[in-house]
Amino acid sequence: MVQKQGFSREIRLGDLPLKKGGVLRDAVLTGYQIGELNGRRDNLVIVPCYYGGTYEGSLPLIGAGGPLAGGDYCVVLFDMFGNGRASSPSRCHPSQAGHRFPLVTLDDNVEAQRRALQAWFGDVDIALATGWSMGGMQSYLWAALHPQRVRRLLPVCATARCWPHNRVFLDGVRSALMADPVYNGGDYQRPPEAGLKAFARVYAGWAYSQAFFRQGLYRNLGFADIDALLRFWEQDHLAQDANDLLAVMHAWESADPGDNALEAISARTLVMPSRTDLYFTVEDARHEASLITGARVEVLDSDYGHAAGAPGREPVAMAQWWRAMAGLLAAP
Amino acid sequence: MVQKQGFSREIRLGDLPLKKGGVLRDAVLTGYQIGELNGRRDNLVIVPCYYGGTYEGSLPLIGAGGPLAGGDYCVVLFDMFGNGRASSPSRCHPSQAGHRFPLVTLDDNVEAQRRALQAWFGDVDIALATGWSMGGMQSYLWAALHPQRVRRLLPVCATARCWPHNRVFLDGVRSALMADPVYNGGDYQRPPEAGLKAFARVYAGWAYSQAFFRQGLYRNLGFADIDALLRFWEQDHLAQDANDLLAVMHAWESADPGDNALEAISARTLVMPSRTDLYFTVEDARHEASLITGARVEVLDSDYGHAAGAPGREPVAMAQWWRAMAGLLAAP
Repeated sequence: MVQKQGFSREIRLGDLPLKKGGVLRDAVLTGYQIGELNGRRDNLVIVPCYYGGTYEGSLPLIGAGGPLAGGDYCVVLFDMFGNGRASSPSRCHPSQAGHRFPLVTLDDNVEAQRRALQAWFGDVDIALATGWSMGGMQSYLWAALHPQRVRRLLPVCATARCWPHNRVFLDGVRSALMADPVYNGGDYQRPPEAGLKAFARVYAGWAYSQAFFRQGLYRNLGFADIDALLRFWEQDHLAQDANDLLAVMHAWESADPGDNALEAISARTLVMPSRTDLYFTVEDARHEASLITGARVEVLDSDYGHAAGAPGREPVAMAQWWRAMAGLLAAP
Repeated sequence: MVQKQGFSREIRLGDLPLKKGGVLRDAVLTGYQIGELNGRRDNLVIVPCYYGGTYEGSLPLIGAGGPLAGGDYCVVLFDMFGNGRASSPSRCHPSQAGHRFPLVTLDDNVEAQRRALQAWFGDVDIALATGWSMGGMQSYLWAALHPQRVRRLLPVCATARCWPHNRVFLDGVRSALMADPVYNGGDYQRPPEAGLKAFARVYAGWAYSQAFFRQGLYRNLGFADIDALLRFWEQDHLAQDANDLLAVMHAWESADPGDNALEAISARTLVMPSRTDLYFTVEDARHEASLITGARVEVLDSDYGHAAGAPGREPVAMAQWWRAMAGLLAAP
């Protein structure tokens, strides 16, 4: 049970200059805050957004059982550009709508989040940056771009860079969507339903693990069989906008902070890859951690694959994340 | 260097009754033979076909350096129904062409191979059944369906059954093809090129391993970068018939000999999964081997993923397969 009620937040950033050129016109970033800054201003926790979700998907992180539930922290859950609520191809200045949406990188997301925090709280350090998947990628970037401000870093099922096989996986998913001519280079008149369904089915094969399917763990998620799981994925993706999905994917695959940026991280760092993650692999996570002074790696011992870290989806992994988070927050 | 010249073989089987019902009309099975039966009639080696290939793709198996190169064995490399040379949607009786092609299972392939061997050699035991991928699946089935006849079994990067995650992977690949409306339920007037390309790109993400891409091992295969590799996959699949691809996939995903059949295997068995194979996993291979009396598992120590076992593609894994094969053949 969350101790007190949070509230939605929104910031209008005007024309946001973009790292790769151009601006995002009338940029709007949204999120959710629960708890308040304490007197020492040392209890701010940020949780950037994962792929295909909104900040609501991160709410289980602040649920009962975890160190953020007690009201000791000021937690900000962010949306992400392209996720359909923050500025996105489906929701932006008309001149940038649909396939005209520019490349908004994760660096741009971090910069927008920085401006939001500045506006809402003034100068303040970040006690902890954590998140799952692309949320973890953005947490990494925060610590790399603002090493003086991020005190603790805990990326879950994430790497800072999009490693080559990860890009190949994303390329396949995108190719499935684009095989549908209704997509029409992003200039569609109606949703490319066949493409969205194919996108979902290809993605589903990567999102879990071989062991997840072997052991029938989808039953723990409420699906009687694999077909039911895949049909759910289809429906979930039919509710999403194709250009939104591809815009965020573009941010994902272009993530590449470079070794120097990782070496600049001064946050107390704990990296938590999942043992069975098929695209944010343990090997890549270990490599990156080796570049960060004092970073530790603790592997999520789960057969859920990448989904192990999805907030609230896998109780055992969630508990492991919470324990790690509590330990990290207890350290100076 | 192969010691002597082999020759193509073909058998016309008439209307072949199919395990799942119906017949394959005017069934034709093709293959290649090199070497001759010896006086003891105990030197017959069969190599069934892998997915997306023809028997030529297995020729490196009988190349210099391996135990089959010396002329001591009578080696038969088979094509497979649906591979575009044996009876296939693109090459069959007009009444069964295209999307009207029936489900021809791996059991049906084994039965056709059995009839072929009977016609060519009469009653004869099989000294060794071996093959990569679906070739390994068929080898497994041979040993399960004809335990008295198969003396040695060596499946490489294969399992006997199509395990659940393997089916999810195939479902994604197929969905990508079918997202192209040109495919039209298999009743296409021109090749579904966008779908075939998407099929190829999705498949490529599974065919190797994360480590393969991380280490740039595609350069060993002659590709300057990942884009070049993916473009090759696209071109390779544009040369294939969509209904052929899906017919063989259907055989693959429906493979399920059952535990009893595996327990019936009396062949001296060595199972060789690849350490990094993403769909014919080491775990599934170990499970199946545990059902077979006396079976051993030797893991191919390769970062090439499933492609580790592709004949002639990865020299180190090829050498490991040959050593295992020589050891098995030397045993009684």
